[in-house]
Amino acid sequence: MCAAVAKPLLYTYFRSSCTWRVRIALALKGIAYDPAPVNLVKDGGQQLSPEFQAVNPMKQVPALKIDGVTLSQSLAIIEYLEETRPNPRILPQDPKKRAQVRMISEHIASGIQPLQNLSVLQQMGDKKVDWAQRSISSGFEALERILQETAGRYCVGDEVTMADLCLVPQVYNADRYQVDLTPYPTIRRINKALLELEAFQTSHPSRQPDTPADLKA
Amino acid sequence: MCAAVAKPLLYTYFRSSCTWRVRIALALKGIAYDPAPVNLVKDGGQQLSPEFQAVNPMKQVPALKIDGVTLSQSLAIIEYLEETRPNPRILPQDPKKRAQVRMISEHIASGIQPLQNLSVLQQMGDKKVDWAQRSISSGFEALERILQETAGRYCVGDEVTMADLCLVPQVYNADRYQVDLTPYPTIRRINKALLELEAFQTSHPSRQPDTPADLKA
Repeated sequence: MCAAVAKPLLYTYFRSSCTWRVRIALALKGIAYDPAPVNLVKDGGQQLSPEFQAVNPMKQVPALKIDGVTLSQSLAIIEYLEETRPNPRILPQDPKKRAQVRMISEHIASGIQPLQNLSVLQQMGDKKVDWAQRSISSGFEALERILQETAGRYCVGDEVTMADLCLVPQVYNADRYQVDLTPYPTIRRINKALLELEAFQTSHPSRQPDTPADLKA
Repeated sequence: MCAAVAKPLLYTYFRSSCTWRVRIALALKGIAYDPAPVNLVKDGGQQLSPEFQAVNPMKQVPALKIDGVTLSQSLAIIEYLEETRPNPRILPQDPKKRAQVRMISEHIASGIQPLQNLSVLQQMGDKKVDWAQRSISSGFEALERILQETAGRYCVGDEVTMADLCLVPQVYNADRYQVDLTPYPTIRRINKALLELEAFQTSHPSRQPDTPADLKA
């Protein structure tokens, strides 16, 4: 007579780099979920509909319905998953290393991604690609220097952490905007190592239920 | 014969809203520190100097030297302070409430502040004020709706949290760009309540060692 416990519901868009971060976390932790695709370009952007704004007033994906609440903002969601489903962990145990992971994550989430976000680029007209390239390159220049201090096999040491969940989607965006990655050997090396892991592959934009047929892997 | 333990060193700029967040955290937790002012406009921006880039390759304040490491990115610094100096706490104990605090913090730190950051505005020319106003208003519209669900006396319930450390500096920036705050009664109410607290007053941009004389309170 028990009601089945509902699976978490992820509001997602195949190409959203912020949502991809959360998809990787869910995959790493083995959390089954139902996807609810929100097309950010169709119909002028389905995230702007009154129905979706009732889900997330921030008019963005990702949003995650889980444990009776609806959460938004990718890093906040990932921290919640880490606190409530700690295995396998994606934050190190040592507070200084945790700080490094959060620092790299925030550098990408606040320092790079917002400047090349769809809603900003839409206002840039002709300068769109140039603006995206400069924002990403400038951020990657700093990131490369930081990773040279913190990295092992991955961004911080040899364990996959939240920083890695931010790195791979940001490199994907850099590729979209044809950013020259030659000056960033550490970023390239880590990105390559991460893309060999199953959680990064199944969550990839080319393998989502809402991926258009011509972009499917 | 013991060497004195060095106080934490905060690289700061009186008007930097991201640094103000950290100054409030330090004040709330009663952590004494030495300020190292970095003038973001003088000399073309002192954060761009090779000397400062050796401290923080991200070329931004805040940066905090503490416990033998140098940390940057405001929320990562605040989370580190919370983990290593937990009293008084600025994250709630309940994971869902912690998620709400982080969600609001990230909405401001990734969704609003980066779009009205100095380095972005410098590229906007004539459109500078209009761009800043639109970015902040759009973010505040969502924030007002979220706070109507989460707020008590402060952003999340009745305890001061990391979300409040983000709110007050962002409202200060809104004032600078003459954003009309009439549509956001919850934001205005919480901001007013927070500004009555000593930690928000002593950390205020008008009361810093590098505040220019004509802007001193």
